[in-house]
Amino acid sequence: MPLYQIHHRVPLSQDQQDQLATSITKIHTERFTTPSLFVNVTFTDISSQPTYVAGKRTTGNRILAHVRHGPSRSQEDYNALCSSIEDAWYETVADTYRLHTIFILGDIVAGYEYGMAIPPAGQDREWLRENIEVFRQRARDEGEPFVGLMRELEERVDFRAIL
Amino acid sequence: MPLYQIHHRVPLSQDQQDQLATSITKIHTERFTTPSLFVNVTFTDISSQPTYVAGKRTTGNRILAHVRHGPSRSQEDYNALCSSIEDAWYETVADTYRLHTIFILGDIVAGYEYGMAIPPAGQDREWLRENIEVFRQRARDEGEPFVGLMRELEERVDFRAIL
Amino acid sequence: MPLYQIHHRVPLSQDQQDQLATSITKIHTERFTTPSLFVNVTFTDISSQPTYVAGKRTTGNRILAHVRHGPSRSQEDYNALCSSIEDAWYETVADTYRLHTIFILGDIVAGYEYGMAIPPAGQDREWLRENIEVFRQRARDEGEPFVGLMRELEERVDFRAIL
Repeated sequence: MPLYQIHHRVPLSQDQQDQLATSITKIHTERFTTPSLFVNVTFTDISSQPTYVAGKRTTGNRILAHVRHGPSRSQEDYNALCSSIEDAWYETVADTYRLHTIFILGDIVAGYEYGMAIPPAGQDREWLRENIEVFRQRARDEGEPFVGLMRELEERVDFRAIL
Repeated sequence: MPLYQIHHRVPLSQDQQDQLATSITKIHTERFTTPSLFVNVTFTDISSQPTYVAGKRTTGNRILAHVRHGPSRSQEDYNALCSSIEDAWYETVADTYRLHTIFILGDIVAGYEYGMAIPPAGQDREWLRENIEVFRQRARDEGEPFVGLMRELEERVDFRAIL
Repeated sequence: MPLYQIHHRVPLSQDQQDQLATSITKIHTERFTTPSLFVNVTFTDISSQPTYVAGKRTTGNRILAHVRHGPSRSQEDYNALCSSIEDAWYETVADTYRLHTIFILGDIVAGYEYGMAIPPAGQDREWLRENIEVFRQRARDEGEPFVGLMRELEERVDFRAIL
């Protein structure tokens, strides 16, 4: 349900993109108990986009994270999220290329993914429980990615109460 | 007042774009009593944008809808909005090209359109009533698009109380 | 902490971009007591992006402003912000090129800039006061842009109580 938009000025190889997408997905799913299948990450090269800070042309990379916001998510959650994402950046990218900004945009108030209405922040577990038969059926009918979703729900300790 | 951003990976002809823009405009104006003149829709080709789901490269199209959020708009409103938009997508685009995500971003807290401050969610009718003489004058002075706005206000039953 | 995204259809020279970025930075910092160093402005050429209003293809330029929203910021603040930004646009760009929309997106709920967690809306002064030794140290160690930040904090009347 989140959408992470990586705006990078430094070139990123596919390996680096794979690694960053995997890290960010892991960070988000562990903090907010969201299945990986609903974590979206995109990469946009902004090397030709004029960017200013304090009215002066600058360089620097940027991550915008669209998330669902609600009382279940504290300022501490978000700060820890940013800190982990920053670590993931510098583990992946040479640290001469700084990550200038991370903005957590608490703007998703509703949505559809895979043709299904997504729940408000903090209600993922209930929503998964209510829709478990739908996911099971789609795993049988469509195979991936729902087979992977069912496997994750079975394997992760924090999801075990759902099945 | 909304801004619908269609991020499409599948090529869309101008006819398809016209049709989608028209459908989405109609869906939004009917649900939220917003005049068509204030419904903005953009198309961005993301076929070269790396996108990940569950840490794996994927394809799929996406719609981000920036709207004004407020107590007048319920989760049911947004889910019905998403459902109608999804229908419009599959009526326009071959259904082998799936619409992976629709995100309703309830992020617009203020703004200017055509040089005028826009109202909070749920107050469009009052705002139109208060500014009706401005729109009438602009229709006389500037012609389109305000002539079209006045015609819509006259013709639509849900706006009739305004004039 | 804000991120202003200028989506322009009309070509803008670097001089015009410099001028707009400087004006918007000044407008934002004066209204919300945010140091210039945390005002981000980007320019994106949308001349090839199909855009619709009322279901019809249109032209026109657009500014999206991601800001932190909170009770310290009123509708009047945002409307005055939009009005000043509109003035800055027409002072910089020939007025045949209209600024069709400005949307204030009150979506930033948290974030990192320069590796530091940013405060909620309305708490910038307290945050600056708490971190003043960090900034002083970084000005000594890293030079710019933190030297500029310290100079701004010393020179601006509205920041004087902080040092």
